[in-house]
Amino acid sequence: MKAQELGIKIGVFKPGKRNKITDVKGVKVGHVTLIKGKGKLIPGKGPVRTGVTAILPHEGNIYKEKVLAGAFVMNGYSKPVGLIQLWELGTIETPIILTNTLSIGTAVEGLLDYILEENEDIGVTTGSVNPLVLECNDSYLNDIRGRHVKREHVVEAIKRADEDFEEGAVGAGTGMSAFEFKGGIGSASRIVEIEGKKYTVGALVLSNFGRREDLTIAGVPVGLELKNWPGRGGEGKGSIIMIIATDAPLTGRQLNRVAKRAIVGLARTGGYAYNGSGDIAVAFSTANRIKHYEKEVIEIKALPDSVISPLFKATAEAVEEAIINSLLEARTMDGRDNHVRYALPKEELLRIMRRYGRLEE
Amino acid sequence: MKAQELGIKIGVFKPGKRNKITDVKGVKVGHVTLIKGKGKLIPGKGPVRTGVTAILPHEGNIYKEKVLAGAFVMNGYSKPVGLIQLWELGTIETPIILTNTLSIGTAVEGLLDYILEENEDIGVTTGSVNPLVLECNDSYLNDIRGRHVKREHVVEAIKRADEDFEEGAVGAGTGMSAFEFKGGIGSASRIVEIEGKKYTVGALVLSNFGRREDLTIAGVPVGLELKNWPGRGGEGKGSIIMIIATDAPLTGRQLNRVAKRAIVGLARTGGYAYNGSGDIAVAFSTANRIKHYEKEVIEIKALPDSVISPLFKATAEAVEEAIINSLLEARTMDGRDNHVRYALPKEELLRIMRRYGRLEE
Amino acid sequence: MKAQELGIKIGVFKPGKRNKITDVKGVKVGHVTLIKGKGKLIPGKGPVRTGVTAILPHEGNIYKEKVLAGAFVMNGYSKPVGLIQLWELGTIETPIILTNTLSIGTAVEGLLDYILEENEDIGVTTGSVNPLVLECNDSYLNDIRGRHVKREHVVEAIKRADEDFEEGAVGAGTGMSAFEFKGGIGSASRIVEIEGKKYTVGALVLSNFGRREDLTIAGVPVGLELKNWPGRGGEGKGSIIMIIATDAPLTGRQLNRVAKRAIVGLARTGGYAYNGSGDIAVAFSTANRIKHYEKEVIEIKALPDSVISPLFKATAEAVEEAIINSLLEARTMDGRDNHVRYALPKEELLRIMRRYGRLEE
Amino acid sequence: MKAQELGIKIGVFKPGKRNKITDVKGVKVGHVTLIKGKGKLIPGKGPVRTGVTAILPHEGNIYKEKVLAGAFVMNGYSKPVGLIQLWELGTIETPIILTNTLSIGTAVEGLLDYILEENEDIGVTTGSVNPLVLECNDSYLNDIRGRHVKREHVVEAIKRADEDFEEGAVGAGTGMSAFEFKGGIGSASRIVEIEGKKYTVGALVLSNFGRREDLTIAGVPVGLELKNWPGRGGEGKGSIIMIIATDAPLTGRQLNRVAKRAIVGLARTGGYAYNGSGDIAVAFSTANRIKHYEKEVIEIKALPDSVISPLFKATAEAVEEAIINSLLEARTMDGRDNHVRYALPKEELLRIMRRYGRLEE
Repeated sequence: MKAQELGIKIGVFKPGKRNKITDVKGVKVGHVTLIKGKGKLIPGKGPVRTGVTAILPHEGNIYKEKVLAGAFVMNGYSKPVGLIQLWELGTIETPIILTNTLSIGTAVEGLLDYILEENEDIGVTTGSVNPLVLECNDSYLNDIRGRHVKREHVVEAIKRADEDFEEGAVGAGTGMSAFEFKGGIGSASRIVEIEGKKYTVGALVLSNFGRREDLTIAGVPVGLELKNWPGRGGEGKGSIIMIIATDAPLTGRQLNRVAKRAIVGLARTGGYAYNGSGDIAVAFSTANRIKHYEKEVIEIKALPDSVISPLFKATAEAVEEAIINSLLEARTMDGRDNHVRYALPKEELLRIMRRYGRLEE
Repeated sequence: MKAQELGIKIGVFKPGKRNKITDVKGVKVGHVTLIKGKGKLIPGKGPVRTGVTAILPHEGNIYKEKVLAGAFVMNGYSKPVGLIQLWELGTIETPIILTNTLSIGTAVEGLLDYILEENEDIGVTTGSVNPLVLECNDSYLNDIRGRHVKREHVVEAIKRADEDFEEGAVGAGTGMSAFEFKGGIGSASRIVEIEGKKYTVGALVLSNFGRREDLTIAGVPVGLELKNWPGRGGEGKGSIIMIIATDAPLTGRQLNRVAKRAIVGLARTGGYAYNGSGDIAVAFSTANRIKHYEKEVIEIKALPDSVISPLFKATAEAVEEAIINSLLEARTMDGRDNHVRYALPKEELLRIMRRYGRLEE
Repeated sequence: MKAQELGIKIGVFKPGKRNKITDVKGVKVGHVTLIKGKGKLIPGKGPVRTGVTAILPHEGNIYKEKVLAGAFVMNGYSKPVGLIQLWELGTIETPIILTNTLSIGTAVEGLLDYILEENEDIGVTTGSVNPLVLECNDSYLNDIRGRHVKREHVVEAIKRADEDFEEGAVGAGTGMSAFEFKGGIGSASRIVEIEGKKYTVGALVLSNFGRREDLTIAGVPVGLELKNWPGRGGEGKGSIIMIIATDAPLTGRQLNRVAKRAIVGLARTGGYAYNGSGDIAVAFSTANRIKHYEKEVIEIKALPDSVISPLFKATAEAVEEAIINSLLEARTMDGRDNHVRYALPKEELLRIMRRYGRLEE
Repeated sequence: MKAQELGIKIGVFKPGKRNKITDVKGVKVGHVTLIKGKGKLIPGKGPVRTGVTAILPHEGNIYKEKVLAGAFVMNGYSKPVGLIQLWELGTIETPIILTNTLSIGTAVEGLLDYILEENEDIGVTTGSVNPLVLECNDSYLNDIRGRHVKREHVVEAIKRADEDFEEGAVGAGTGMSAFEFKGGIGSASRIVEIEGKKYTVGALVLSNFGRREDLTIAGVPVGLELKNWPGRGGEGKGSIIMIIATDAPLTGRQLNRVAKRAIVGLARTGGYAYNGSGDIAVAFSTANRIKHYEKEVIEIKALPDSVISPLFKATAEAVEEAIINSLLEARTMDGRDNHVRYALPKEELLRIMRRYGRLEE
């Protein structure tokens, strides 16, 4: 259940039809969820609480028709693959893969399996490809040393990608924690109007960060109120990956700017980008397609910077709600060494929100 | 009156003795406030609503004993002077000057007047000096084209620097607006404990940003509640400069990280870093001094990154409160073309905070 | 006399008609040269060996019709004004001013005088303006503490801008040194063909860097050969500003890439970006104009990145020759404390080049 | 055979004992070379011309005792893993692995195999680890789509690491091309004296870039002279990875500066950082060790920036010679589709160098 459905309003813009990143036409998301075993951690054996999530920027061949993109690193205690080339060329040319920290190698391998099969020219008659993989550390619940994600899981997540997708403890979010509650995948979207035209901004987050006492929902210090709720632990280390999609026409430079505004949403939920957290945002626009073999002068459609502030605010709002949704959609999950991450308690939450005058009833 | 005195609690850490940036030992702040004329704007004549604020990192010769420093640009619609060298060398070697956008040239001139007099070797037997000047656009109230700040005002602000200093509509803050209320200079501090030692983090902001409806105080949507309070206008354009001081031993790289966390505080007040806003943070530490003529291997004291998260959170809190304090301390001011920036209405504010359960009484 | 005229060939591309930055249509350059006094340095009095150089990206109102731009800082021991906003918005909106380090404040002031007069809306009905000023330290010859550049000199340099302009010890280059010879203003251009279309790349440098023994001309270790030529001194400190203009259609991101390639040219002359050197490149394209008041979606013309390598090489070549030209065009000049910077000795140079097989006769 | 042994002198500083990166005490290098098959490319089958090179910053547990590090991306058409965290924390915590572009996933996997075995706490009682992997595209000779590098090759390369190591067409350099000749692994070192103390700077490059006509050796346009030498092809695409080691005490910020100067060396060999080239430098210092579990204030030894210029020049020289050495040490190699990369012809080279007066005999 999403924040809006519970009567918790985040921001002022309206969400899109699904209130998901897939409200941006053409964007699809797929998961592979890996859950196996229980009890004591036996490194290499389990328990397994992890997975893969794939985000597809459009339905065609992404390598042959790239999308413009930007990114921002709020805190670089992180192991992303692909950002250097993204910044240099301002494009994304593969599906975006999210997984656990120690599986980035495998994720690259699986993503290459998929891309190389789709593009027989890579490494033969044209150059190479820039796989885009981002991660969080799910070792509080998961046997992360076991590297249970396999190449075929990555390909499978890409193939399952759809406009409809689950949130919470699924895919790459399976073993993730946020604010010492169960976190994972969350999504939201916002519609803005600029000079008479409507644009959609969608966000998908993989939440795995935050200390309990920092959790803030629609401005309410929920974490302080739930300080003594059971299930604390894990030192509040972790990370967050924030993916933003939009159909507004923007250049790579502008999408770097958009990615930066994800941090505003993050901050409003209680994210401080602590030392051990890898807080990274990637933003792309579906409005221009850059053809791999193009050699002539192209025309890039772009909004003037002077009118894009609504996109900045919508990005912040969508990310803020996506983080809260990642908590609200996640179910309680146990993991290694009998660690338990509880779902954010809904009734208690509603009581708190009401007390602080923030429940729309 | 500061947020804490009104019963509005921002964050969890305790403030220092003054709840100001000058709680960091050795740091001093001085203002020159320029107010003259009334009524219709006659460019070059007035009305004048502007000024200069100087922050001194320590009491000695800053050029000869530099402090380690970092900076972060959240949005670069801004005209700072001095950041390029600050990043390259990781140091600050002059007082920090804040003023209005069109007075940065004069501010550099005045700062040079001061520095060159203090250091007869500059440009003769040693190299040059890197003046550090930051600005916001006060043209909603001020005849900014008139460039009423003079070189001697800059020197005067430096000379007036003291541990005690005013906040609100003073110095560089004289003509600034925040959330379509009167903004300007605000300050706050926080004490943290790391591995058994206490460190102070102080913030000083020059606030001049935000749309009315975005104003958020301690999580409460005060701006939406005061949407119809009089005095709107100015399109909510503007900027914010955030200066962070600490006595914790940190390297330039770490101070870049600290500066980034100022954005968390900014975001929590309703800052979205809109296109036209120049949102910049500068952080320095007083714990190491880098001697201008040093040639031998030095030893830089630094906290390990693994223990510095409390400084990140304290920075966010101090900046958040400093912004709110800049509103609370500012008095109503009129300016050019009979524009009026009202002080944030205290009684109304308290009513709202109480309604949202956020007033400590 | 330029390198090409002496029979010294730098690179493989052909220069444009003038072999100057003004081969890019619409670009103009103007100088004000300040020379006064002789003998012992009396700070504030002289001798004066300094000046101002202005580069105009096009002939219209640059604030109202901005050009796309990028920049790169190879070494940030430098005090540029305007780069932060250039990177954020990818545009230049004023003439580019070059001068000495301690005159950047005055240069901003003078540039504002010019821009504010041209644009009555700035600071009244529209936002502010981002002055672009870059500098080198001419204190080996000049009484830099005297700050002899005045605001009117800046306006004058802009007004004098023309397609034809002098090189060497003129304008901002008047007091500059390179490789312990006389340096200053140098320029060159290159024509490249991409997919059947011709584009021009022009460079203008303000050279003030390098140790004698590092000087390399067309690969020849001229500096080692001239190690004992008179006139050494000044510790080889200094900086270089490199301005690149092109009519090729490029985005801000791509122009950041172009600016980076200026370093290749710099390196090939013997530039190591020593600690005390501020080595900065700014690149702009005249192919798109960004209108200040535009609010609708625009179309930005751009070459695909896959075909722009010839522009990278042309940039390196033009910068390399521009640096050598700054030496070849400069005449011997004396300055403070009877310091003398000798012009690079032509006959000796030709002898050396011939000996290394690098003279086209 | 190295440049110096042939009588080709690059730069002015003296090399260390081995003229290799391993002249920096504690640094070791290991290779695994994979050569198999001949003739027509059958993707997935061969021919195989690839490998792995590992650089170890010191002999201990690198994760538990990290070295300070910096990096610079001259051109980001590249797929490095690990730079984001390197910049954030200023450290390297694993061996550095070089391999081919499509094997970065496998390289991460293999590196993790090694690191996880050495450190049982990772992912169990402490956080994760930041694998550092860099690559070039060897597809001109190698069946890169076959991804013939296996995890065990990576572990093997680490285990083989020694102070003595081969250069040329070995390890990751097996299938690489430079200037349309055979390139690969090259190394060199320089000794500098700063304030009476000697420091060593070592470089190791993986060269795979450049068009034939651009090749420049000690300033001589060797590439133009050898334009018609057989074996051209492959469009001159490619990349270069430059690793710099030093025993001089430097901070992460300073090591970013050092890494940037690698570009000076690159430029002097004819590197223009063309669009399709991934040109990346990583620099580390062995002088400080950052302990993984340290929580107390540490003291970082560092040279003042004002004296580090000799390290900048030594870096440029070592990289320049390392690139030339990568050519001189490589033997002719055939590969897929009967592509042949010829070794740089020594006799012809000496004739050319002599003609240009650059041979020490």
